[in-house]
Amino acid sequence: MAKEKVCLAYSGGLDTSCILQYLLDEGYEVIAFMADVGQEEDFEAAKAKALKIGASKCYIEDLRREFIEELCYPAIACNAIYENVYLLGTSLARPVIARAQIAVAQKEGCVAVSHGCTGKGNDQVRFELAFYALQPTIRVIAPWRDPVFYNRFKGRNDLLDYAAQKGIPVTSTKSQPWSMDENLAHCSYEAGILEDPNTTPPEAMWKLTVDPIKAPDAPEDFTLIFEKGLPVKLEYDNGKKSATDPVDLFLTANTIARRHGVGRIDIVENRFIGLKSRGCYETPGLTMLRSAHVDLEGLVMDREVRALRDQFLTFNYAKLLYNGLYFSPEREFLEDSITASQKHVNGAVRCRAYKGMFSVLGRWSDTEKLYDESESSMDEIGDFAPTDTTGFIAIQAIRLKKYGKAKQASGVDLVNGK
Amino acid sequence: MAKEKVCLAYSGGLDTSCILQYLLDEGYEVIAFMADVGQEEDFEAAKAKALKIGASKCYIEDLRREFIEELCYPAIACNAIYENVYLLGTSLARPVIARAQIAVAQKEGCVAVSHGCTGKGNDQVRFELAFYALQPTIRVIAPWRDPVFYNRFKGRNDLLDYAAQKGIPVTSTKSQPWSMDENLAHCSYEAGILEDPNTTPPEAMWKLTVDPIKAPDAPEDFTLIFEKGLPVKLEYDNGKKSATDPVDLFLTANTIARRHGVGRIDIVENRFIGLKSRGCYETPGLTMLRSAHVDLEGLVMDREVRALRDQFLTFNYAKLLYNGLYFSPEREFLEDSITASQKHVNGAVRCRAYKGMFSVLGRWSDTEKLYDESESSMDEIGDFAPTDTTGFIAIQAIRLKKYGKAKQASGVDLVNGK
Amino acid sequence: MAKEKVCLAYSGGLDTSCILQYLLDEGYEVIAFMADVGQEEDFEAAKAKALKIGASKCYIEDLRREFIEELCYPAIACNAIYENVYLLGTSLARPVIARAQIAVAQKEGCVAVSHGCTGKGNDQVRFELAFYALQPTIRVIAPWRDPVFYNRFKGRNDLLDYAAQKGIPVTSTKSQPWSMDENLAHCSYEAGILEDPNTTPPEAMWKLTVDPIKAPDAPEDFTLIFEKGLPVKLEYDNGKKSATDPVDLFLTANTIARRHGVGRIDIVENRFIGLKSRGCYETPGLTMLRSAHVDLEGLVMDREVRALRDQFLTFNYAKLLYNGLYFSPEREFLEDSITASQKHVNGAVRCRAYKGMFSVLGRWSDTEKLYDESESSMDEIGDFAPTDTTGFIAIQAIRLKKYGKAKQASGVDLVNGK
Amino acid sequence: MAKEKVCLAYSGGLDTSCILQYLLDEGYEVIAFMADVGQEEDFEAAKAKALKIGASKCYIEDLRREFIEELCYPAIACNAIYENVYLLGTSLARPVIARAQIAVAQKEGCVAVSHGCTGKGNDQVRFELAFYALQPTIRVIAPWRDPVFYNRFKGRNDLLDYAAQKGIPVTSTKSQPWSMDENLAHCSYEAGILEDPNTTPPEAMWKLTVDPIKAPDAPEDFTLIFEKGLPVKLEYDNGKKSATDPVDLFLTANTIARRHGVGRIDIVENRFIGLKSRGCYETPGLTMLRSAHVDLEGLVMDREVRALRDQFLTFNYAKLLYNGLYFSPEREFLEDSITASQKHVNGAVRCRAYKGMFSVLGRWSDTEKLYDESESSMDEIGDFAPTDTTGFIAIQAIRLKKYGKAKQASGVDLVNGK
Repeated sequence: MAKEKVCLAYSGGLDTSCILQYLLDEGYEVIAFMADVGQEEDFEAAKAKALKIGASKCYIEDLRREFIEELCYPAIACNAIYENVYLLGTSLARPVIARAQIAVAQKEGCVAVSHGCTGKGNDQVRFELAFYALQPTIRVIAPWRDPVFYNRFKGRNDLLDYAAQKGIPVTSTKSQPWSMDENLAHCSYEAGILEDPNTTPPEAMWKLTVDPIKAPDAPEDFTLIFEKGLPVKLEYDNGKKSATDPVDLFLTANTIARRHGVGRIDIVENRFIGLKSRGCYETPGLTMLRSAHVDLEGLVMDREVRALRDQFLTFNYAKLLYNGLYFSPEREFLEDSITASQKHVNGAVRCRAYKGMFSVLGRWSDTEKLYDESESSMDEIGDFAPTDTTGFIAIQAIRLKKYGKAKQASGVDLVNGK
Repeated sequence: MAKEKVCLAYSGGLDTSCILQYLLDEGYEVIAFMADVGQEEDFEAAKAKALKIGASKCYIEDLRREFIEELCYPAIACNAIYENVYLLGTSLARPVIARAQIAVAQKEGCVAVSHGCTGKGNDQVRFELAFYALQPTIRVIAPWRDPVFYNRFKGRNDLLDYAAQKGIPVTSTKSQPWSMDENLAHCSYEAGILEDPNTTPPEAMWKLTVDPIKAPDAPEDFTLIFEKGLPVKLEYDNGKKSATDPVDLFLTANTIARRHGVGRIDIVENRFIGLKSRGCYETPGLTMLRSAHVDLEGLVMDREVRALRDQFLTFNYAKLLYNGLYFSPEREFLEDSITASQKHVNGAVRCRAYKGMFSVLGRWSDTEKLYDESESSMDEIGDFAPTDTTGFIAIQAIRLKKYGKAKQASGVDLVNGK
Repeated sequence: MAKEKVCLAYSGGLDTSCILQYLLDEGYEVIAFMADVGQEEDFEAAKAKALKIGASKCYIEDLRREFIEELCYPAIACNAIYENVYLLGTSLARPVIARAQIAVAQKEGCVAVSHGCTGKGNDQVRFELAFYALQPTIRVIAPWRDPVFYNRFKGRNDLLDYAAQKGIPVTSTKSQPWSMDENLAHCSYEAGILEDPNTTPPEAMWKLTVDPIKAPDAPEDFTLIFEKGLPVKLEYDNGKKSATDPVDLFLTANTIARRHGVGRIDIVENRFIGLKSRGCYETPGLTMLRSAHVDLEGLVMDREVRALRDQFLTFNYAKLLYNGLYFSPEREFLEDSITASQKHVNGAVRCRAYKGMFSVLGRWSDTEKLYDESESSMDEIGDFAPTDTTGFIAIQAIRLKKYGKAKQASGVDLVNGK
Repeated sequence: MAKEKVCLAYSGGLDTSCILQYLLDEGYEVIAFMADVGQEEDFEAAKAKALKIGASKCYIEDLRREFIEELCYPAIACNAIYENVYLLGTSLARPVIARAQIAVAQKEGCVAVSHGCTGKGNDQVRFELAFYALQPTIRVIAPWRDPVFYNRFKGRNDLLDYAAQKGIPVTSTKSQPWSMDENLAHCSYEAGILEDPNTTPPEAMWKLTVDPIKAPDAPEDFTLIFEKGLPVKLEYDNGKKSATDPVDLFLTANTIARRHGVGRIDIVENRFIGLKSRGCYETPGLTMLRSAHVDLEGLVMDREVRALRDQFLTFNYAKLLYNGLYFSPEREFLEDSITASQKHVNGAVRCRAYKGMFSVLGRWSDTEKLYDESESSMDEIGDFAPTDTTGFIAIQAIRLKKYGKAKQASGVDLVNGK
């Protein structure tokens, strides 16, 4: 009888190498799968390793474009942010990775997909919810939640022993005292020495961005141009250079932000499963792109549309991304609403990066000017009469006068305290 | 017959000096009122000027403590922010000023209060809504909305002519090309050359903070301690100094932030009356206090309480402050809710200011630890079994599998595109 | 010189007849405008009266179809309701009336539009905000807010005197002790004896619906079929008859509801201008159509889409309709979102009307069944294992156990009270 | 060695009798626990049965007062409703039952609690989340999620066989074709023949309320009086009788509603675990109490407080009750906010029950009258000038005129269609 096939998300590291071997031991044929979402990695070396261990095939899928266009760009368009601070770099990559893995699994006729995520994190949830939505009949093998597996491999040493026994090459014998996840949007750091939320991360930890203290002493200015809420052009080097293709633009933003140390944060966040977790993140380009987008909305977005979007879309879109609910009815619903909110978000933002800080120097837009200098001017009389404001205030005050009278009637002195 | 008394918010400047004279001309007795909310100003010189012009009395009220304790502190407790960026420095000062002015008006038996706000701004609304709530029967004289007044004084030159004619001393003959509002929390800049949203403000404009580029090359670290969401201690100078009194603490935070250029923003915002307006703000200490508070909540606040607070209290409290609805039923309601949300927000945040940037170095809390290092550790098995997560995901997936099946049934291929 | 033209919303009643005459007296040429939104009215008699008084022309515009298709149907699709109770019958008609009036004004080259709304109500706001959005340069003549007019006509007797003097025919010398507004969706009653919120309206007041006590003793059953959230078929008379055209369908729903006394409410509501106001409304067909739509969503709408829609779209769409902000950026935004939420709301609801009550007898849908009898059955094991729920609960409990432990640690006994 | 003790939620029915026996077979000492939340039940017979089967003790806890005072009353105060329709009768009872069961478990030194809930419903989640919050170290035995148990007892016949074998008395050999849950607030019906959402429930199913068709032909009027949002008096029988004690008041409301057939609903709802489920509910008194409370808020509650409460508290409080998150930080937070919102909700509502329908006849309040007849009167000029409204509209129109101009500039004809 033919062996059952499993598509394993493979990284080339110790954990997924051991899992690959374990799945073979368990009698599966294993198709290795690697997603290129822009992380620094020797994909070919990892592929060779997977095949050496015994994978029948190893797919390396370049997902960088869809990662930026389908995930990062909508996130910019709705100013996605989790718990006021986190820009969701890891969450954004999961849907494209899960989708590509299922595509491979379907192509190869796999009965199951497998991954090396731990049993306490968000990523297992994000991957598996995506798997189940995309292929409701798929089976998921999550060794780190299988007692047989996790009771056998209780720590790194057990894995090293197993690797030695099975002839699995181990590239580094010493791991870093934290775990990382890198993609085009960000690099994350958590666990290990970072678990104490009062431990300042060592400067050497940060991989993508320069230490702001060591960043150039001269600021760097550039201009970001948006259409319908999405970045369409980045002009830099005094307007001499520009990038328009989404991948180019995003990478250029990264380059600028990285050399000026922009985008580092250090937070304690609430995981989907209810635990709190300390995470450090550097999100260079996305931090600047999102902030510029927020700024442009000030110039061109209607106040009430913005207020509704702020209360509703930003929070909920970020929450569903964080919780791994990208492939869901609510994501489709919210994304349609985001698009509807961005119809007129066209214009340019002049930006500056300097010593870890992003700031705005100015902005302009040709489209449907909601901002009209003469009307908001303090010095000129525009389309409305100052006396109108008297009526406006008088009407607003109706309710408040009743409030004041009720307070007086009940003996409360709002002016001088009780 | 005794003259009717008016209590005029007086600044010592050209506008309110002319208004004072105008009210006298109109037959009123004028009580001048000045509020000290921490702005740099020669109050005694202004008082002398008011009396010289003809005010019967001039009150100078020190409102700094109540401004910080009653307004700035609750704003920190709910992370108040308007349109994602603005920390509401002007809005926060208006309620205490309006309240003190009404108190003077009541004490002096004034039938009316008057102010020099323009007819297109937010401040007229904020002051007057507060006046009407605090004293529903009060009359408001707003000369800049009175056609008799504004048609007579069409520009600065008309005011200068009037001052010359009436013998009103004019301290400076040339005004700055923007208008400013300063208090302990911030300094704002708008109008004039700033009305073009693409004009970068000149470096000389910023009054409170040093240019980040000229800020010290060495970062400065300090620790902020909170109880029930409010700052109770600021330790600085390597722990050698500290401030605990709210006014001291706030001023110390300002000092640190100012010398490191922290808290400048430049935005286009939506005014209550529906116009857009460009504003530049520097909010040194409050920027750091708010950010540290946000950080601490990550460590100690329950996820769901935080989510509800973020969706509901932060947005709406900021909106009512901005719109001048402080003395209102909804503010009382929201403030009770804010207090309820902050019961356990106790702890310390280690902070850094450097070249315009505020960052967090670490944080700790003794109170009701929601963060438990061993449980969220990737390396240890805590109170729950990894297998539980399998069930958690399976149940979450029920709805998503139906979504996936429905997509398949309707011929949509989520994996490979339509 | 040619006279300036004004387009007056004319009803044939005493108020707008006097306003017509007044505008003529003021030197305007008046184009009368009447909107047929389904109210019971002798339009031709009113037209003759307008022309007799002196209007140059009188337009009668049949807006019933657009009223139902463009306003009532979207309101059903998002379950629009104001302050938990009111179905917005008057608000829904205002946008189509205002738009048709502006169209006439544009066609006739009018410089102004005029109406007979009082100065304290919502309708003046709704009409005028629509006018200004549709034709930003239009002038609005609102005599009941013009001191010249309202000081001259202080009560009904002044108007009667004026009518007598000017030869304006007066159809009834006695008005009802309340004011009414009728259209296809509802009839409203307010003011007069209804201003005391404790006065039960007399049975004779209700115009559209039969007294539930006098309604038939036998219930009447019918079936409503929806596609994408909109009613597409009403089957009645034991399935022997049906209506599909929106106007037919809506009128049929009205007929059924009216004879069974369905849709009466009596509330105190909050007007846009900040006053409270008592209103009685009968909304026969719309009450049933909305309730059936709510029911169907239970069967076919995803839980999370529904929750987001409930929190966001329903409240805000109702609020903007009530406040007269239909022609606005936020309405366009919300309507796009409503459409996105209703993609799968297809199915049928079996309904009953009886003695004032609407109830649901059952419902079914062929489309993308989110409801799966076998899976939710208590008796069968479906797609998931009961043990999964154990994990689901365990993970949900992580956060709550911390809560419980923190309570214990702080000495609070949740079980037996403090 | 002493046996481990388990506290079992016992009902006297076949399921929990078999579970009791099963726990004894498994070597536990069993403490039976019965909660009296007002359901019709022979508690003493059930107790005798538990003891006969082998329970060491059987507690019968009267929880009716705390159920009404601590759960039903706050639900009234925030108008709690789930998915627009369901009044949460079952959800409301779970917290008091779980708390009393944990209290017994603590008193008896039980290591575990057990219940007979199925593995697909909401109740298992509600009970267990409460158990874990109240006693984080407790063990839960849920036989219907234990494969050993559910694989052995695959249907009713297996249980009957087991009962026969063990000598467990079986009171009825035939069960109803649906399952029920009754308490003071409601009776629910689900499963069995009700699983087809298009099956109209048989009239005989409804236990608490009379068929509206058979209800009295005469309406019954009564008055409900509230203080701080809570019912404090029910006057009935033409004012000759009244109830003030919460339990009395609630039972009296039930009696009136039941005899007039008020409070039946039939819906498809979304369970916490993601399944949809059809449920029929009759909630007699609570339906009337909640509706009267909604009505009173119209009269006395500030518009903005109400809007914030509607958007925030009602939805979220209902959701957490439904999902079993009563003992949680967010419930404490929301309950404090509810209290803050109800400070002024004092007054009386005159009500009518008739043929299944609840309606309001009038209402009044002495406290802080936000409703002022003369001011909202169309006939009188109150505290504000009609001309003020002109300014109010003009200011509101600023934003909309820009919208209209932008539309015109982009070639969109809002008046006549594109």
